[in-house]
Amino acid sequence: MKVGFIGLGSMGLPMAENLLRAGHEVMVYNRTGSRADNLAKQGARVGASPREAAAGVEVLISMLSDDEAVETLILANKGATEGLGSGAIHLSMSTISPELSRRLAEEHRARGQVYVSAPVFGRPEAAREAKLWIVAAGPEEAIERCRPLFEALGQGTDIVGAEPVKANVVKLAGNFLLASALEAIGEAFALVRKHGLDPSRFLEIVNGRLLRSPVYQNYGTMIASERYQPAGFKLAHGLKDMKLVLGAADEVTTPLPLASLIRDHFLTAVAQGWKNLDWAALAHLSAVSAGLSPARPTP
Amino acid sequence: MKVGFIGLGSMGLPMAENLLRAGHEVMVYNRTGSRADNLAKQGARVGASPREAAAGVEVLISMLSDDEAVETLILANKGATEGLGSGAIHLSMSTISPELSRRLAEEHRARGQVYVSAPVFGRPEAAREAKLWIVAAGPEEAIERCRPLFEALGQGTDIVGAEPVKANVVKLAGNFLLASALEAIGEAFALVRKHGLDPSRFLEIVNGRLLRSPVYQNYGTMIASERYQPAGFKLAHGLKDMKLVLGAADEVTTPLPLASLIRDHFLTAVAQGWKNLDWAALAHLSAVSAGLSPARPTP
Amino acid sequence: MKVGFIGLGSMGLPMAENLLRAGHEVMVYNRTGSRADNLAKQGARVGASPREAAAGVEVLISMLSDDEAVETLILANKGATEGLGSGAIHLSMSTISPELSRRLAEEHRARGQVYVSAPVFGRPEAAREAKLWIVAAGPEEAIERCRPLFEALGQGTDIVGAEPVKANVVKLAGNFLLASALEAIGEAFALVRKHGLDPSRFLEIVNGRLLRSPVYQNYGTMIASERYQPAGFKLAHGLKDMKLVLGAADEVTTPLPLASLIRDHFLTAVAQGWKNLDWAALAHLSAVSAGLSPARPTP
Amino acid sequence: MKVGFIGLGSMGLPMAENLLRAGHEVMVYNRTGSRADNLAKQGARVGASPREAAAGVEVLISMLSDDEAVETLILANKGATEGLGSGAIHLSMSTISPELSRRLAEEHRARGQVYVSAPVFGRPEAAREAKLWIVAAGPEEAIERCRPLFEALGQGTDIVGAEPVKANVVKLAGNFLLASALEAIGEAFALVRKHGLDPSRFLEIVNGRLLRSPVYQNYGTMIASERYQPAGFKLAHGLKDMKLVLGAADEVTTPLPLASLIRDHFLTAVAQGWKNLDWAALAHLSAVSAGLSPARPTP
Repeated sequence: MKVGFIGLGSMGLPMAENLLRAGHEVMVYNRTGSRADNLAKQGARVGASPREAAAGVEVLISMLSDDEAVETLILANKGATEGLGSGAIHLSMSTISPELSRRLAEEHRARGQVYVSAPVFGRPEAAREAKLWIVAAGPEEAIERCRPLFEALGQGTDIVGAEPVKANVVKLAGNFLLASALEAIGEAFALVRKHGLDPSRFLEIVNGRLLRSPVYQNYGTMIASERYQPAGFKLAHGLKDMKLVLGAADEVTTPLPLASLIRDHFLTAVAQGWKNLDWAALAHLSAVSAGLSPARPTP
Repeated sequence: MKVGFIGLGSMGLPMAENLLRAGHEVMVYNRTGSRADNLAKQGARVGASPREAAAGVEVLISMLSDDEAVETLILANKGATEGLGSGAIHLSMSTISPELSRRLAEEHRARGQVYVSAPVFGRPEAAREAKLWIVAAGPEEAIERCRPLFEALGQGTDIVGAEPVKANVVKLAGNFLLASALEAIGEAFALVRKHGLDPSRFLEIVNGRLLRSPVYQNYGTMIASERYQPAGFKLAHGLKDMKLVLGAADEVTTPLPLASLIRDHFLTAVAQGWKNLDWAALAHLSAVSAGLSPARPTP
Repeated sequence: MKVGFIGLGSMGLPMAENLLRAGHEVMVYNRTGSRADNLAKQGARVGASPREAAAGVEVLISMLSDDEAVETLILANKGATEGLGSGAIHLSMSTISPELSRRLAEEHRARGQVYVSAPVFGRPEAAREAKLWIVAAGPEEAIERCRPLFEALGQGTDIVGAEPVKANVVKLAGNFLLASALEAIGEAFALVRKHGLDPSRFLEIVNGRLLRSPVYQNYGTMIASERYQPAGFKLAHGLKDMKLVLGAADEVTTPLPLASLIRDHFLTAVAQGWKNLDWAALAHLSAVSAGLSPARPTP
Repeated sequence: MKVGFIGLGSMGLPMAENLLRAGHEVMVYNRTGSRADNLAKQGARVGASPREAAAGVEVLISMLSDDEAVETLILANKGATEGLGSGAIHLSMSTISPELSRRLAEEHRARGQVYVSAPVFGRPEAAREAKLWIVAAGPEEAIERCRPLFEALGQGTDIVGAEPVKANVVKLAGNFLLASALEAIGEAFALVRKHGLDPSRFLEIVNGRLLRSPVYQNYGTMIASERYQPAGFKLAHGLKDMKLVLGAADEVTTPLPLASLIRDHFLTAVAQGWKNLDWAALAHLSAVSAGLSPARPTP
């Protein structure tokens, strides 16, 4: 399939590679051009602008870091919407606000284009191994047309409705559940450590016997070892996502006190200079507050 | 083995039955005597006092609802400690404070008795099916002597050290992790429901793909259906446990803001009259606060 | 002085009247036109558009309810900036975000206009009695030109610098202090009431002897009587302001956990249908959570 | 009057001096004996035990740091209750839990003694200058007998009922209001500082114009200067009081989320080693969390 791909960050780059590998014809664009060089060697064409990357493709995928990047590269003057043909699909896989998702839906409709929202769960390793979990929402027929792409990128796709924004809400609420687990693990570890217990042993028992979740396993292991680099998902992005969660909740007049608490802890962490650590470093704050660990996690 | 058993609540009763079934000679005591009748038919002897239930046994098990019950039935004047023989073991399986656990350790030592702390994870069904997870701490040799009892009661035993209090800390920190999951699910469901999504579908995706935890599955299903009766574990006990968690954290100067938040929510729930609902009704508060559900969950 | 005035809400209307009374020549504009009728009888001219209200005046005052109103009436296409003459002053007295205040500063600079930010403290009674407290920031010379207006509107003006945004930050941080007092009073009253004490008597002691603050006195009296209507300052505006406070804090990476807690409580209150009550009804939530009062305050 | 006085801490010592100065016959007791030396020179007699200090007096005043000290010196074996004569009054001026206050009431009643609860508001300077505010509860006639003592110690006495515990609740709820002001000031200052504003100037405006409270003035000035030593009231005592507040609230099933937040912040502060700083250092945590100030306040 003829595919445009905008956004070659730590997620986007391996995703674009997987599309090439699956035999798709890919035209990429990235603000930092050098990120595209390697893809070019693998057969991608490189657009000079988002508009060019969108021109003539059947599906334009965007995988960008935040609302602002999507506004600038997709919606703004000379953005991708201006290049995308009538009837072509914009498959938005970034984690963005419901509000922006609605604006994209409107804008694409007005231009006779089709909008599918399909954010993903998974860290860069999962992107590389084509093991992302995709949550999609949009017109049924358009989602069907995207199937080959989903298959090249992930291990499964859940469709949550015809209204694109629903996929964004599921993604945000899901990230909130993950962040809640980080906060809970951080506090529980601080408690058991101060009582002279080994947090790994505690994890082995409580996750091994009860929760039995790979998420608690992976993050718990990272937190027990206090190694938050290299970052699979940066703490600064965790903060961004909690702001999106609270924004999505504000929109529908829903208080989320735990999300507020986590947002405040991420803010505190960023104010301590931890923005480039893995977002699991949220848990480090509990250790610092309890006087257990130095204010700066070791690299 | 000759076993005393004090406390025939929704957990203790099926546990005592399992001991009988496994061929142990059991002498029971319960404050509400009628709870013992059925056990008597199954072969248990019924003590007239905690002291009597403790007299002449090799191991005395206590499974009581809170610190106060343990103080009254075990430590107080005419309590079980006065009946327990020298060298006999008190196997305390209740969820109690670290502080009380330390006092029990001292008291038993002073009397030449042996103290093993072994709280359990699992709800009444798990108690009935002998599928509890047991966390034990105490003198190694004493724990070995308790093995046949652990095998009759649970599906596995984790030993966390020679100091009995460590088992209590693991149990409390574990319950805190579970309560954190309830709070997180409650908030996430409120958010997705207000955006027009079905919480069961959301659970299917986020737990089905990512968390993959039976705990999230079971509680998520209960919360999605808003049915909090009959209670497997009462909300009032959840509140008690969060107070124990915060007390254990205070002892070692450890702030646990999420535990505080959950404690406050349990308090609010009890003030609304929900104390006899399942503790998963913690999540109902998020629905009420968002204006989604009536202040009283349907029975 | 020739003055334009945009925004005749519960604050703006009495302010405009005071300007007329002080002998200024006032041209008003309001989205709901009928609000201007009475002013017309008192000698105001009524503009047909924000642009018209701004044309030819020396100072244009805006007193609007939120960022969106300011964007629409001042900044948007055909907004007041298009009517305001070169060298004329826009005196922005609304409670708005620092971000919007910066955009206004830029926009006016680009057009050769002058921007002074001067939000006010005080409820509608204070506006009527010309007893507002004004916090002003902007070019010194421009503030001097506004002096006669400040004198007609308030009992004092504090100048906090040449950078207009500083006045907005002071206003927001001040409103946060007031809302914090409401939350604290609400919780303290719930505690003493549940212990059988009269909250008015408690207030008499703690404020009468220690705090000695008219703010605690006035709000404490309102909260003790549980009468939140008519609203001097609507709860919905309190929520808006806490969002602005948190937004201003986000901008500079500053966690404000108490502001988050208050925001969540305002959100809960709005979700219960209390948005048109006085913002002191924030305190009612503590009474409801404690099981003291019915979910809906009496009118 | 013949008065016993137990507890010569930073509050008790100047209070005892004021009683001597007013011509009362004072018998003192303190665990650290040397604290009594100076008083002896001023005419006090020094008891060898709490029991001795209580023997033969008309009123026994206790001014101790926490529940445990009161239990040890007043209630325990060989405590003051054993020395106090029938019909004599125990005037308890310490900040203690409602629960302990009830136990004291019972114990004294059983012994034919009279119990008056009369905690005070004010820091050591106020104690020295006899400017404490006293909140008293107990039998009317007993309170009347204590009048001359109240006059020697404070600038005013508020009577809140015949049930002694009520005075303790007022004291705790009052301290909660004060701590809430500290937290609010700390967060507001962090916000304005990060926006480049001087916190003193902010205080001047918001307290000078609106709140007009000497409490905000005094603490605000201390916090703006970041000097938390010497401590008028130690942070460790602030933590103790917040625990008492939450305990008093638990007793009557009342959630106090702001009190929980403050308790957690005090815990964090103590875990950073700040327990001997003035409790206003609560506000320092907001500065540290925002990345404004080093983790340890300068001495």
